[in-house]
Amino acid sequence: MTHSLKGRDLISIADLSKPEIQDVLTQAAQFEQRLARGETMHLCEGRILATVFYEPSTRTRLSFESAMHRLGGRIISVAEARTSSSAAKGETIEDSARMLAAYADVIVQRHPAVGSARALADAADVPVINAGDGTGEHPTQALLDLYTIEREKGGLDGLQIAMVGDLKNGRTVHSLAKALAHWRVTLDFVSPPELAMPARLVDELQEQGVRVHQTDDMQAALAEADVAYITRIQQERFVSPDEYLRYKGVYVITAEVVRQAKPGIVVLHPLPRVDEIATDVDALPNAAYFRQARNGVYVRMALLAMVLGAV
Amino acid sequence: MTHSLKGRDLISIADLSKPEIQDVLTQAAQFEQRLARGETMHLCEGRILATVFYEPSTRTRLSFESAMHRLGGRIISVAEARTSSSAAKGETIEDSARMLAAYADVIVQRHPAVGSARALADAADVPVINAGDGTGEHPTQALLDLYTIEREKGGLDGLQIAMVGDLKNGRTVHSLAKALAHWRVTLDFVSPPELAMPARLVDELQEQGVRVHQTDDMQAALAEADVAYITRIQQERFVSPDEYLRYKGVYVITAEVVRQAKPGIVVLHPLPRVDEIATDVDALPNAAYFRQARNGVYVRMALLAMVLGAV
Amino acid sequence: MTHSLKGRDLISIADLSKPEIQDVLTQAAQFEQRLARGETMHLCEGRILATVFYEPSTRTRLSFESAMHRLGGRIISVAEARTSSSAAKGETIEDSARMLAAYADVIVQRHPAVGSARALADAADVPVINAGDGTGEHPTQALLDLYTIEREKGGLDGLQIAMVGDLKNGRTVHSLAKALAHWRVTLDFVSPPELAMPARLVDELQEQGVRVHQTDDMQAALAEADVAYITRIQQERFVSPDEYLRYKGVYVITAEVVRQAKPGIVVLHPLPRVDEIATDVDALPNAAYFRQARNGVYVRMALLAMVLGAV
Repeated sequence: MTHSLKGRDLISIADLSKPEIQDVLTQAAQFEQRLARGETMHLCEGRILATVFYEPSTRTRLSFESAMHRLGGRIISVAEARTSSSAAKGETIEDSARMLAAYADVIVQRHPAVGSARALADAADVPVINAGDGTGEHPTQALLDLYTIEREKGGLDGLQIAMVGDLKNGRTVHSLAKALAHWRVTLDFVSPPELAMPARLVDELQEQGVRVHQTDDMQAALAEADVAYITRIQQERFVSPDEYLRYKGVYVITAEVVRQAKPGIVVLHPLPRVDEIATDVDALPNAAYFRQARNGVYVRMALLAMVLGAV
Repeated sequence: MTHSLKGRDLISIADLSKPEIQDVLTQAAQFEQRLARGETMHLCEGRILATVFYEPSTRTRLSFESAMHRLGGRIISVAEARTSSSAAKGETIEDSARMLAAYADVIVQRHPAVGSARALADAADVPVINAGDGTGEHPTQALLDLYTIEREKGGLDGLQIAMVGDLKNGRTVHSLAKALAHWRVTLDFVSPPELAMPARLVDELQEQGVRVHQTDDMQAALAEADVAYITRIQQERFVSPDEYLRYKGVYVITAEVVRQAKPGIVVLHPLPRVDEIATDVDALPNAAYFRQARNGVYVRMALLAMVLGAV
Repeated sequence: MTHSLKGRDLISIADLSKPEIQDVLTQAAQFEQRLARGETMHLCEGRILATVFYEPSTRTRLSFESAMHRLGGRIISVAEARTSSSAAKGETIEDSARMLAAYADVIVQRHPAVGSARALADAADVPVINAGDGTGEHPTQALLDLYTIEREKGGLDGLQIAMVGDLKNGRTVHSLAKALAHWRVTLDFVSPPELAMPARLVDELQEQGVRVHQTDDMQAALAEADVAYITRIQQERFVSPDEYLRYKGVYVITAEVVRQAKPGIVVLHPLPRVDEIATDVDALPNAAYFRQARNGVYVRMALLAMVLGAV
């Protein structure tokens, strides 16, 4: 381990070089194995993680807290920061940062405003991990997605990965696409034209050597994809209800859709899902989204231990 | 210890055989003694309990969390699951179950819907303990009630136990009556006719050999009872306010009521109480309801340690 | 260490003698040093702190929880007691006290009603620490203020300390003034006449030998003060908006104000601040308010360890 992340913030997936990402994935795999052996770890004993959520995200919060507990560390938490914290008394995010840094050794924040994680990190003298800042970034989700793809397919180079759904507004797919650009991959962007991947990001990916296809035909894309990364389409993104209903119908993964896709295709979803993946998919070996959730703990353990200098 | 509960769910008190209940009570007594000696336990070190409450129950949540801490384990918590969790985004209880099982080694859930605990347990691959599912069951309350009666009276066989209040809607008394049916007991059901113990449950108890009396005369019942188990009567259960006021008045335990009852009678209440037990009872040796709350920690320690295979 | 605080409640700063206060400050300094050396402490292993907040105070809650974690202890928490707890079902504070004492070894409570902390302490058979009871007391804030002044100035005797802002309603300055009366200090009370320090408290301080000046001229006071303790002035305390605006303007600490004050003046604030200290002060060595927040952890560690008999 290079220890290169000690004391570092993680605000954007772009903060990490490819070797650093690889270090995180390697460390996560080691933690997964140690937990599988039933090992109780004390690497972060005496260290405190503050989880601060200005909008609810039970899944992300519990995943980080579980990770810190598995490392032997402790948690202080503001689960509903908007209403219950000093923010309601008019405190700036900079002052909150200094408070949290007085009480904790590492801070994880979810906040609805783009840029808020960077503001927190600039004011806090302990590492800050961005757990989502509005339509901005959610870098630990991208890392756990990478980890899952690598675990499911045995590697990342050479893969063809379809991203399906709302590619315009989804910070998850933006971060993941940027992360995947470090490897030799083909990305199929499957969405209604209204919800296409932003042109600037597509250009950026192509400049980095990523092969990109854009389509609104999911089944055609899945016939060639090694991985299908599914996200939710929300009605409020469409001008007309008819348009919404048209895409809502065709962008649903069912067991039948999986059977017609490339054999061995791995189906991922950042969860929670609503109805974009039918429950008849759950029992298929292709359904990796619950394993993906579990992998989030290993990846966050790796990150926490690394920024705390505990490994 | 038989270890027979390792990996098991506890949804209904009927899930446990009499020997299993006895194991839990024996284990709880052992934990009580170890804590009294000031012992710090590490039996559940490295293990994580998720407490998920879709309706508030501070008492039950804190009791479980205290139990897990006393065992050296860790907690992740969704104290206000209804508003703050993925449920608000439309996630099913089955998907929540898989998420929680990815982050924790055992799950405790309180949910307003009957059957929700079973649904959670069916989807989660870690043990689930029901901390109340609407008018359904609350099995750990029944176990701590049993433990308290046994501790206060030195045993369960041969006792006459009066249950007072709303016996129709009270899941607590339903679970406790079912649990007591494993022993040779007499049960006096004291309630207004409108709030009587369901006939089906009475039949079931009698088939198991329980002697059952039903009455609306509390003082007469308490003259013969070894234990008085008091529950709250809520106004909204009555059609007419007059009817409510009539029973509200006579089903209040005061120091005077205790003096006229059978000597040595033990007064229990699942708490919180409002005014069905007057505060002048608190100082009497008969008042066991605060000891009962304390016993909840020992019983929940026993259950957590047993389903986790830690004892 | 005299251990004299074992089992004791801390409701008012007046509960502590001068030697006891000095013990707390000495213990806090020792904990600060041990943490600075990177020591992981296990002094409160197996012990549980319950934090119960009937009104939000993220800063105070997290400070106590961080302190307990640093000691190796555990936390159970009711962060929003008003809505989520048994209080909503009509439970009295005395019954809540007995419940909490069944689950925890020490209780920290914030409650909007004066006297509520004493009521809790009277009913609970474990130590209770008052984390603010309305306009009543907030004794741990006074202790951390003392600790900070001593650390910043090297001692307390002989200091001239200006308290600025709303001195009528501020429980923080009341508790701090009472605590400082154990030492040979001069107190300058700087406020609008409407928000002056209560006459009874001023009399009491003078009887104890404190030299007191009262003024509404902040800059004149700061020219002679070793310490400036700033608090917020709230608009709703004034009858006329004009009056408010007049004082709002002159009671703002800026870098320029600090430059015109006594050299080496230490600026304190209980936080959160809104605009009574300009951010251009933050970078000055005089700005001690963020160090003050950090000191809260050491002081609360000392108190928790002492009332638990762990040191």
